[in-house]
Amino acid sequence: MNPEPQLAVERLHARYVHALDADQLEDWPNFFTENGAYRIATAENEARGLPLPILYAEGRAMLRDRVQSLRHANIYEPQRYRHLMSSVLLEKLDDHHVRSVCNFLVVRIMENGEAMLFASGRYVDRIVLSREPLYEERVVICDSRRFDTLLAIPL
Amino acid sequence: MNPEPQLAVERLHARYVHALDADQLEDWPNFFTENGAYRIATAENEARGLPLPILYAEGRAMLRDRVQSLRHANIYEPQRYRHLMSSVLLEKLDDHHVRSVCNFLVVRIMENGEAMLFASGRYVDRIVLSREPLYEERVVICDSRRFDTLLAIPL
Amino acid sequence: MNPEPQLAVERLHARYVHALDADQLEDWPNFFTENGAYRIATAENEARGLPLPILYAEGRAMLRDRVQSLRHANIYEPQRYRHLMSSVLLEKLDDHHVRSVCNFLVVRIMENGEAMLFASGRYVDRIVLSREPLYEERVVICDSRRFDTLLAIPL
Repeated sequence: MNPEPQLAVERLHARYVHALDADQLEDWPNFFTENGAYRIATAENEARGLPLPILYAEGRAMLRDRVQSLRHANIYEPQRYRHLMSSVLLEKLDDHHVRSVCNFLVVRIMENGEAMLFASGRYVDRIVLSREPLYEERVVICDSRRFDTLLAIPL
Repeated sequence: MNPEPQLAVERLHARYVHALDADQLEDWPNFFTENGAYRIATAENEARGLPLPILYAEGRAMLRDRVQSLRHANIYEPQRYRHLMSSVLLEKLDDHHVRSVCNFLVVRIMENGEAMLFASGRYVDRIVLSREPLYEERVVICDSRRFDTLLAIPL
Repeated sequence: MNPEPQLAVERLHARYVHALDADQLEDWPNFFTENGAYRIATAENEARGLPLPILYAEGRAMLRDRVQSLRHANIYEPQRYRHLMSSVLLEKLDDHHVRSVCNFLVVRIMENGEAMLFASGRYVDRIVLSREPLYEERVVICDSRRFDTLLAIPL
């Protein structure tokens, strides 16, 4: 595979991560195609083929709704996220689409300064290589099934 | 250095990491050359020049043996790994070989969902740039000398 | 953006990280231009526009002084760092300069082998794309305002 798709996809992933970590949630739907799907699942459920995502949203409109309800929800304790990502592995699907798998780790920082390992797992994506690549599907597969209510914020 | 070796090596590292994290241990020996060597050491021993690796295996046959014994061993508690990697720095050795240094961090997730920082350190590799690059030598230098029995699984 | 600046900047970041993690602090000033500036701030202060860095140094001479005083300081407990970095996002400023944003996470390993998540945040850099790229400014924005005295060592 020539370098261009690799770097273009890594750039998409980087922009996504920085938007979330900077709390620019309103930008989040724009990383998806108009009908793009977003799903959070656990490794356990994926391995068993259980179609029960922790969260599912399809289409930018639904993703925007999600952000809006987050903005209006009472998150009692302010927190910040920091995403680390690595090992982006691409597979060509056709001339305009790739499948991307990469690992992630998210640190959560509470307002008192306490930091903890919040989540780890992998992103499994179907990406359209338009001028600015976009997610047609982003599946977040978390290693642990332990989640608290704060999971409401996109990973 | 032109982009190709950098991306080719990062792709090798990514495939390696995803194979381990997906518990595809049988694929592990195939990332090495026929006589490829694998070694786990601690930063302490490396700094002192002590030739006492925690683990040493040379050649695909020995790596396969290692996987087989792992499969037959009693690992009482199922666990999952997640590797994060970064900062891949290449040095050209000759037209067909590079030395690669990169950092890693491994999170271990137990069956009850508990996640912990398991290991950190660096990979120091000698890689042959064949059509599909392979490890001639992979040395895993762990920062900490604290290890428990689960280290039996390759890093 | 063509691949070259991306890979050249990632290589600069990688060399920086490996120098720190290998305790080659004397090399640290050489990653900066002659008048290069280094600053550590907290996300909180950055968001409020408070110009109160935790640490500020400008010019190689001052960076060298910093290393010298570290070498002569009494660090009672030896420790080691491991940096993980990801999501390097470049923005072209002009033909010879880019702005780079990337995420980091630092693990600290104490002499007894205990490892902990020490710091997370992002690097915001202004880089000159000379033959060997250099930092004109490197700002380390830490997520947490909790720091102990060991922060004295550069991040």
